[in-house]
Amino acid sequence: MSFDALWAALEPVGRDAASGGYRRFAWTEQDATLRDWFGGEARRRGLDLTTDRAGNQWAWWGNPDADGPGVVIGSHLDSVPDGGAFDGPLGVVSAFAALDQLQAGGFVPGRPVGIVNFGDEEGARFGVACAGSRLLTGALSSDRGLALTDTAGTTMAEAMRRAGHPPESVGRDEPVLRRIGVFLELHVEQGRGLIGLDRPVGIGASIWPHGRWRLDFTGEANHAGTTRLVDRDDPMLALAAAIVTARQAAGERRCVATIGKVAVTPNGVNAIASHVSAWLDARGPVERDVRDLVAEVAEVAVAARAHEESFSAATRFPPELVARLAGTLDDAPVLGTGAGHDAGILAGAGIPAAMLFVRNPSGVSHSPAEHAERDDCLAGVEALARSVEALATDEPARR
Amino acid sequence: MSFDALWAALEPVGRDAASGGYRRFAWTEQDATLRDWFGGEARRRGLDLTTDRAGNQWAWWGNPDADGPGVVIGSHLDSVPDGGAFDGPLGVVSAFAALDQLQAGGFVPGRPVGIVNFGDEEGARFGVACAGSRLLTGALSSDRGLALTDTAGTTMAEAMRRAGHPPESVGRDEPVLRRIGVFLELHVEQGRGLIGLDRPVGIGASIWPHGRWRLDFTGEANHAGTTRLVDRDDPMLALAAAIVTARQAAGERRCVATIGKVAVTPNGVNAIASHVSAWLDARGPVERDVRDLVAEVAEVAVAARAHEESFSAATRFPPELVARLAGTLDDAPVLGTGAGHDAGILAGAGIPAAMLFVRNPSGVSHSPAEHAERDDCLAGVEALARSVEALATDEPARR
Repeated sequence: MSFDALWAALEPVGRDAASGGYRRFAWTEQDATLRDWFGGEARRRGLDLTTDRAGNQWAWWGNPDADGPGVVIGSHLDSVPDGGAFDGPLGVVSAFAALDQLQAGGFVPGRPVGIVNFGDEEGARFGVACAGSRLLTGALSSDRGLALTDTAGTTMAEAMRRAGHPPESVGRDEPVLRRIGVFLELHVEQGRGLIGLDRPVGIGASIWPHGRWRLDFTGEANHAGTTRLVDRDDPMLALAAAIVTARQAAGERRCVATIGKVAVTPNGVNAIASHVSAWLDARGPVERDVRDLVAEVAEVAVAARAHEESFSAATRFPPELVARLAGTLDDAPVLGTGAGHDAGILAGAGIPAAMLFVRNPSGVSHSPAEHAERDDCLAGVEALARSVEALATDEPARR
Repeated sequence: MSFDALWAALEPVGRDAASGGYRRFAWTEQDATLRDWFGGEARRRGLDLTTDRAGNQWAWWGNPDADGPGVVIGSHLDSVPDGGAFDGPLGVVSAFAALDQLQAGGFVPGRPVGIVNFGDEEGARFGVACAGSRLLTGALSSDRGLALTDTAGTTMAEAMRRAGHPPESVGRDEPVLRRIGVFLELHVEQGRGLIGLDRPVGIGASIWPHGRWRLDFTGEANHAGTTRLVDRDDPMLALAAAIVTARQAAGERRCVATIGKVAVTPNGVNAIASHVSAWLDARGPVERDVRDLVAEVAEVAVAARAHEESFSAATRFPPELVARLAGTLDDAPVLGTGAGHDAGILAGAGIPAAMLFVRNPSGVSHSPAEHAERDDCLAGVEALARSVEALATDEPARR
């Protein structure tokens, strides 16, 4: 089946007519449609379809339990609010297209090949990114994960139950992890590295340390018209200080820091806010710098408590795997990234993993404007197929 | 019927269990309950109950069409998000209690006496304060008012229709306006003036010029982890500048300015915002200063457009009416206020109006902590009854 046909089937799912962006959140109706699509594509190819304890979907060509751990490709299908079409789905669609290309060419793998759809990668609904892979590896405990709530107060456990996945089953899934010999995640690039290098595909070598912190600013609700300035305790001023400090402190440390989500209580035009929560996303090449930045923001915005919702240390993908891919892919350039990915979570759990990036002509991501040219996507499929070919002729190396 | 019994019946309506505050918004189920309560109290006293074209409720003792314009007392029953129990309802409950007191004492008025419940005073749902009195007087055109939308996109017209009020009827209501000889609105004080003066009740003499502006900051959505600081166009920084400038510019001009409501798009933790709207509430003794303040905020927050959602010029209640009330009420102190009220809208339309304020021990308003002591409330009822007694013995002065 062609890349174009696979891509076209996904295009309308969860698309917001007004923004043109996608709203594909974990355990929603849109998510169920995407999961059905994944299952259909697996069945159409005669692959073994399973769902792990954490709710991630797997489609195996060959039997990894009998024939040793396999080569896994894939990514995720969910999105940030008003996200683009490529972040996630490009990796899953390219995985099916690469498998089709290998099978059409008569390739007989020396080890099983799997395709994965990791659930809830963006954390858009429950606030923890890579929730599917974190629950799978135990990096996120089932107790903590299942108790997370969305803005409507629905817990992840309840959301899973409504979507037909038993939350009781959630926890580190040892047999599933043992099936993964190596994981290679193809992803649209979320920066401008490949533009400068004039190459359609690159290899991901590392992921910056990154995390999310919730800042809580508490003040005192009061009437906007009748309360003297000196009598006010307005948490919006602390928010302003946090926004300004985050940008400045990031610039001084070669980090990036963003406040992209804000919740104001009561959020009335003529009421001084009683409470403001703001979420700080901070990343950089050096963990110490990231932590110092967060501490500086919390200190300047005096009323704030910084609650760490997630943190991932620096991830360096195995150098021998990266080198091998570079050799296979005509010395494709090797890049680091500030974005977290399921490949980083698996690497953190000791599973060999790496990434392929497909050029993004604007560098824009997490936006309806996110894009990759068709030719570059096809170059990505080709690179993925050649990588699988190289890795799946090995004897199973890991038990 | 006692003040306490009247008060107790309203207490649970629209109360949020978590915050302890009230969420009584126009044309909602809670609003319908409050309107039913008003109708029931009117009928219990044998008053003539009518609803005007704009949806405000009137209960008349006597016939203002036959016997000349009357003395109207009352206020509103809606609230800001998580508002207090007193802002609005104290004026309506005190009106019924004062009427009961006058009737029990055998008072025979020389002119009709009316009680009003103005709809949608806070503008919490559709963004325009005093919408009921503005529609009644034509200060807000029916075209503009009916097209206002709430955060769910529902128009005021549709909300009215669903609540059983025909939006086609909305417009300046001349016969209803002609019935009002004088309007006296009792209200909880929203500041600390009466504390300092050690008096339970004061007379409102003027309302500061005040308005609301929506500031629109447009940026570019992008990935929070992979977009270099220099490549960002993050509207959150403009929001921070607006918050800081509003406070500073207000302080320099003896005004107050508040950003209490913010809407971020897409509001995702790991996405740079594409758009931020913030609402600026600004007030002060001098209109020129208020307008300069708003211009300064719009100028500093460079990406912003300031869209004026409402503006009310300074209102000075008729000095002879204020003086007369002061004489009747043992030289009660005379105060100005930064808060807008329906009394101000009526005064702006040429109808004699004034206010009574009841002491607020903390000065806090638009908050669950808003309060007035029971003894002060009873003093307010007494003051209102004496004022009506004085004003309703006059011959009808205005046709």
